[in-house]
Amino acid sequence: MTNGAIRHMALFTLKHNSGSAEAAAFLKDGEEILSFIPVVANFEVLLQISVKCDFDYSFSMEFENQEAYDAYNAHPDHQRFVRERWETEVLRFQEIDLMES
Amino acid sequence: MTNGAIRHMALFTLKHNSGSAEAAAFLKDGEEILSFIPVVANFEVLLQISVKCDFDYSFSMEFENQEAYDAYNAHPDHQRFVRERWETEVLRFQEIDLMES
Repeated sequence: MTNGAIRHMALFTLKHNSGSAEAAAFLKDGEEILSFIPVVANFEVLLQISVKCDFDYSFSMEFENQEAYDAYNAHPDHQRFVRERWETEVLRFQEIDLMES
Repeated sequence: MTNGAIRHMALFTLKHNSGSAEAAAFLKDGEEILSFIPVVANFEVLLQISVKCDFDYSFSMEFENQEAYDAYNAHPDHQRFVRERWETEVLRFQEIDLMES
């Protein structure tokens, strides 16, 4: 990451069964909707595979700086995704924000 | 990440105060020792800055496949770092392993 950039990760577990069509649709729609927001870079859909961590998936993305991160949080497509999909289909989650040391 | 690669992250909080020489030494030594292990790629020392996550730092690294990850876990430099530094200087931690979906 460049200096001042922020990597935002959301670890989560879905209400849908692993491998279900509903789970696949959530991951696909999340990637399409969130990665299309202009300030979002390096969007990744990841599977969490450690048995020592109680989440199944992660979205990971990078913002050039805090202003870009704020713009993401305020973006109507992000807010609509949170309201219509995240809050209805995600069972539990953990946010992580990382910067270069 | 390439297909089959694993991103291993350890989120942690140190016993040392934030900004202390001891904290800086732990992060520097961890990077030098662990990133020098041949199977380790893209090693990063990161600050965790979300108030919604109760860890201060993260090491992040990538392995080409499970065999490389196993080699890292078995490597004497890794095992010595865990025994001599991690187990004595880390207050709490959370491991996360991620793969491309």
